[in-house]
Amino acid sequence: MTAPALPSGDTPAGGATPAGRVTPAPGLERFSFNQATAQHWPLAEAVAGCAAAGVTGIGLWREPVQEYGLDRAARLVRSAGLTVTSLCRGGFFTTPDWWDENRRAIEEAATLGTRELVLVSGGLPAGSRDLDGARRQVTDAVAALADEAAAAGVRLAIEPLHPMFSADRCVIATLGQALDIAERFDPAVVGVVVDTYHVWWDDTVYAQLARAGDRIAAFQVADWVTPLPEGVLLGRALPGEGCVELRRLREAVDAAGYTGPVEVEVFQASLWSRPGPDILAATIDAYLAHVP
Amino acid sequence: MTAPALPSGDTPAGGATPAGRVTPAPGLERFSFNQATAQHWPLAEAVAGCAAAGVTGIGLWREPVQEYGLDRAARLVRSAGLTVTSLCRGGFFTTPDWWDENRRAIEEAATLGTRELVLVSGGLPAGSRDLDGARRQVTDAVAALADEAAAAGVRLAIEPLHPMFSADRCVIATLGQALDIAERFDPAVVGVVVDTYHVWWDDTVYAQLARAGDRIAAFQVADWVTPLPEGVLLGRALPGEGCVELRRLREAVDAAGYTGPVEVEVFQASLWSRPGPDILAATIDAYLAHVP
Repeated sequence: MTAPALPSGDTPAGGATPAGRVTPAPGLERFSFNQATAQHWPLAEAVAGCAAAGVTGIGLWREPVQEYGLDRAARLVRSAGLTVTSLCRGGFFTTPDWWDENRRAIEEAATLGTRELVLVSGGLPAGSRDLDGARRQVTDAVAALADEAAAAGVRLAIEPLHPMFSADRCVIATLGQALDIAERFDPAVVGVVVDTYHVWWDDTVYAQLARAGDRIAAFQVADWVTPLPEGVLLGRALPGEGCVELRRLREAVDAAGYTGPVEVEVFQASLWSRPGPDILAATIDAYLAHVP
Repeated sequence: MTAPALPSGDTPAGGATPAGRVTPAPGLERFSFNQATAQHWPLAEAVAGCAAAGVTGIGLWREPVQEYGLDRAARLVRSAGLTVTSLCRGGFFTTPDWWDENRRAIEEAATLGTRELVLVSGGLPAGSRDLDGARRQVTDAVAALADEAAAAGVRLAIEPLHPMFSADRCVIATLGQALDIAERFDPAVVGVVVDTYHVWWDDTVYAQLARAGDRIAAFQVADWVTPLPEGVLLGRALPGEGCVELRRLREAVDAAGYTGPVEVEVFQASLWSRPGPDILAATIDAYLAHVP
């Protein structure tokens, strides 16, 4: 991510100064705004914008949090009355520094007060074709990190990414595969992330959601549109713009027992070019129309 | 596909005029050249180039065959001593003209003397989110076409496409899903296509290949490289350029009982920009180094 500009203070720049928690706006009781949806919106402004809009939850990313300062970010979000619904991302277990990076990510999640550390497991090492080996490494890494996560009160939330990312971002490509790993551990310590963009195409997804039950650590929403852009990373779209049965997937996640936040996370160059408050407003509108 | 320029005659423009079948060059006994790998190479030149190189099989596409003339193309290939290993493509069952188009495709396959009609099943109809409905339509369409295919001696070869194509090209995304459909029919009439590019990422692929057995109607090879280009269709690469365990997949296909041709099929703008004979030579080299 491009680092947002550093704002001058720790407290929200606009909106009311809340005492305690933000009161959700009607229909937004479960809505969470993933900060990457407004990639260029400085953290303090995004936090203030969410609070002012009656958004109670925000999903954060490690890089902008580190730029802002971890403790300072934690104070900022707390003082605004927001909940950090997830931290993206740990993982990338096939890179040499995975151990130190993931221990840091666990600490950061705990400091920010979120239980859910989203794990994007990493792709094949450069020049490697050993897909089975990379997948074994994910399981081994999760096992190696589980005790530390448990001690910190953080859940390792394995996110299957769409198979178009298997080579370079995440060798875990389906919900079934993520559950095969997660089920080896205490569900309070290792769970899975369900992201509509990554799983919508899978003819087994509804069966796997039922299987997942209390393993569902986070539910993220984005829509699928074509043509995919070069590099495919920024192809995600706002709810309703594409072909994904978002409401059906949300209902299936709920039927599995999930009662947590619904985090909208969109990476899209044209959306990012708009002002942060406009992006948040568009995201809320899209969510209300297509998800609850 | 862009239609290749019409060549002036029906017989190969270069190389020897064979009597009977082409004698395969060493190591090329199973190799087949899919004509889309050299998208701009006129059909007659591609056929002559294959024969001259000791390539015994060619995979054809309907559009350039229609441009050249169906009967004329059949004579061309036969007189060159080549075998048509597959015809791409039938399918697109979610478009209004699927019935007529697929009946024509069956006739064309029979005329060309190939048993394998590759089916790319089609994506979601414009504006639709009914993925289950589109998938049911594929099964219904295959059922509706099976008798006609059987009568023509043509096998309906269902190809699962990579899930990044689920919305706009093929709602059949995994080998398991293709087999779920194919298994409802006589294996002499309905089979599956295994294309390394589309299935390599799937953690169940080796189990599904074992399951497939004599359902494997065609085996196509391309490698996976990143970053994916805009639209992702032209991201395929020559064997060895990417991260797919091609030899392992070929061995698994063989272990399932498949003894047919191995068709290299690459769509890549930079490869297409080269002269046809260069493309064929590069494809043969890549195949010999990474597949048998």
